[in-house]
Amino acid sequence: MDSPRVVTLTTDFGSRDAYVGVVKGVILGIAPYAHLVDISHEVRPQAISEAAFLLLTGYRYFPGGTVHLAVVDPGVGTARRPIAVVTESAGFVGPDNGIFAPVLADQGVMDPESGSLAGARAFELAAPEYMLPTLSRTFHGRDIFGPAAAHMAAGVDPAEFGPPVERLATLGMPEARIEDGRIHGRIIHVDRFGNAISNVSGEMIPDGVTVEAAGRVIGALSSSYRDAELVALVGSSGLLEVAARDASASEVLGLRIGDEIVVRSLA
Amino acid sequence: MDSPRVVTLTTDFGSRDAYVGVVKGVILGIAPYAHLVDISHEVRPQAISEAAFLLLTGYRYFPGGTVHLAVVDPGVGTARRPIAVVTESAGFVGPDNGIFAPVLADQGVMDPESGSLAGARAFELAAPEYMLPTLSRTFHGRDIFGPAAAHMAAGVDPAEFGPPVERLATLGMPEARIEDGRIHGRIIHVDRFGNAISNVSGEMIPDGVTVEAAGRVIGALSSSYRDAELVALVGSSGLLEVAARDASASEVLGLRIGDEIVVRSLA
Amino acid sequence: MDSPRVVTLTTDFGSRDAYVGVVKGVILGIAPYAHLVDISHEVRPQAISEAAFLLLTGYRYFPGGTVHLAVVDPGVGTARRPIAVVTESAGFVGPDNGIFAPVLADQGVMDPESGSLAGARAFELAAPEYMLPTLSRTFHGRDIFGPAAAHMAAGVDPAEFGPPVERLATLGMPEARIEDGRIHGRIIHVDRFGNAISNVSGEMIPDGVTVEAAGRVIGALSSSYRDAELVALVGSSGLLEVAARDASASEVLGLRIGDEIVVRSLA
Repeated sequence: MDSPRVVTLTTDFGSRDAYVGVVKGVILGIAPYAHLVDISHEVRPQAISEAAFLLLTGYRYFPGGTVHLAVVDPGVGTARRPIAVVTESAGFVGPDNGIFAPVLADQGVMDPESGSLAGARAFELAAPEYMLPTLSRTFHGRDIFGPAAAHMAAGVDPAEFGPPVERLATLGMPEARIEDGRIHGRIIHVDRFGNAISNVSGEMIPDGVTVEAAGRVIGALSSSYRDAELVALVGSSGLLEVAARDASASEVLGLRIGDEIVVRSLA
Repeated sequence: MDSPRVVTLTTDFGSRDAYVGVVKGVILGIAPYAHLVDISHEVRPQAISEAAFLLLTGYRYFPGGTVHLAVVDPGVGTARRPIAVVTESAGFVGPDNGIFAPVLADQGVMDPESGSLAGARAFELAAPEYMLPTLSRTFHGRDIFGPAAAHMAAGVDPAEFGPPVERLATLGMPEARIEDGRIHGRIIHVDRFGNAISNVSGEMIPDGVTVEAAGRVIGALSSSYRDAELVALVGSSGLLEVAARDASASEVLGLRIGDEIVVRSLA
Repeated sequence: MDSPRVVTLTTDFGSRDAYVGVVKGVILGIAPYAHLVDISHEVRPQAISEAAFLLLTGYRYFPGGTVHLAVVDPGVGTARRPIAVVTESAGFVGPDNGIFAPVLADQGVMDPESGSLAGARAFELAAPEYMLPTLSRTFHGRDIFGPAAAHMAAGVDPAEFGPPVERLATLGMPEARIEDGRIHGRIIHVDRFGNAISNVSGEMIPDGVTVEAAGRVIGALSSSYRDAELVALVGSSGLLEVAARDASASEVLGLRIGDEIVVRSLA
């Protein structure tokens, strides 16, 4: 017997309501051996880019063949398409609103500017036999996405779900740029510890730099959260972040999503 | 081999303490192949009707034979009975304090006024061999309910648990009523998005109506959350709700649990 | 086939980020049949003693052979050792910072003063083949602890992980003491309901006592949360706690972690 297929869930459903549990009930009715793993349900309501960030930093740590279900869906009930995407290593099911753009670009199968796919197959979720019999207008996680993810986990070829899709919605996530020898990035996530994580990849950063954020010099790159009161380091996601020892850097510095971070050479 | 049995958990235990994990440990010691699914542990402390609402809107999406464990139990350590109930489609284990009244009435097996059962079997949890060897006075989720749910999931006939029960505690959940051609309902839940959900079933609502809540006219029935700043629609649970576009209707309108909602004909 | 091995997780990672999901993805890549159970991820950031308390009160309710992964790790990236410990009934994987001291002392296999082990085997996590191929400096839960817990759950003898360890870090958790015929304890946890739980074991308390906390007399020992507005009782963990009926005792009394509680004879 093959290992049970992992299905992850990333939503803005929160933990107070029955929404997440209901989606899991639907999945287990279709794929009883699926292994369900929550990535997060605390995405801020309708914050597509936050869910995209969580998927981007998390997906590569899951077993091959994992199906990632992501539902942050401000356009539910409007014309945005429901989709399933398959890459060499994983499947992705959710609304076509850019939520998968970073994770697909990271795998080199989607152009983040145009949304064109190359090396991944994508399909619109259109076939009623892979949905719940009655569709609501407001809860496609339960009625459309959950069932599709479950059928994928149970071995259905997603080509069965509907017509192929060649181009997906993109996401206007800011990219770090190099100008006058400095790297200009932006804070894209603040984590539970108050660490402010930027879009500057560690691979972009040469030796001997100093990091500035919130109008002050944080310092050179550190290798531990405990090196100083405030540290800049390349965190576990491979991205430059600012952290405070035993405190929230975001609060200490007033550093918020969208704020600038600058890396400059010491020379 | 049969599919693994699903056991759901609905409690007011929260996520800070070890309470939920401990109940799951007990269940897995008895039913190692059970598939545990959280419905919610963020029910407000001792809010029986909130847990009842979550079960009511969620239960029908789980596979047949699912055992629903629900523990919101202000009367723990007093005389209220611990019970297990079996219907055609599912099992229910928890305190006899009305927590299962709506979900059983919805299945047509309990009279919501008298609490009499017809078409369901219920038993008091009395047999010590289906409990933990040492009972606390304050944590029956761990000592009594968790073990009973696990034994049910493992195939024990609940008639083994104790004497049959013919009548269960009811719950004073408000019911919508029609008066002078208007439907008068109440808000019974506010979800994570701030949507204010009422006890007015979509099936009660004729065409061509206008909805009023919080002292103002919300408008006609919409079909999407994005139709207007404020919308009234029949949500994914089949109940009339009031929602705000990209905002919390509950906050915008000051709409709280227990507040009135009125549906009137346009004529 | 043996029952699937349970792996519990206790961290301060919270539920907003992908951290917990990523650790689970790593575990399931190594041990696809592991049954993952969250104890809590809402430990206050870097509060080692809070995680230690949750493990202490929870571990005995899990099936034999359960692997308890605990990551509250302010010293990540510094010299503190990563360890795995095996006792007769369970395994423990995490940083050697005292997080397992109470649960090991409770099993009688560790001296809480000196940290010496007797009757348990412990090993430093040193062998790269049981870690992820690339190690970050800041996320050992993903790179070192998760993989070790998974390998243990999959049947690897932890002696493979690295050199044996004879003595572990201790934790300065306050112990209750008896003086002048009174028991002097401290509040060590406040739970979701606002119950203030002390380090006074129910076994220490003779008949006929009165309990004082927050500068006032709470009363004699009760057997139910509903006996009075404020009650002192031996809770489900076997520890003396102060609770308020339908309210938070911690808020009502201003009772916080570290505050004193006194048990005196009525005589």
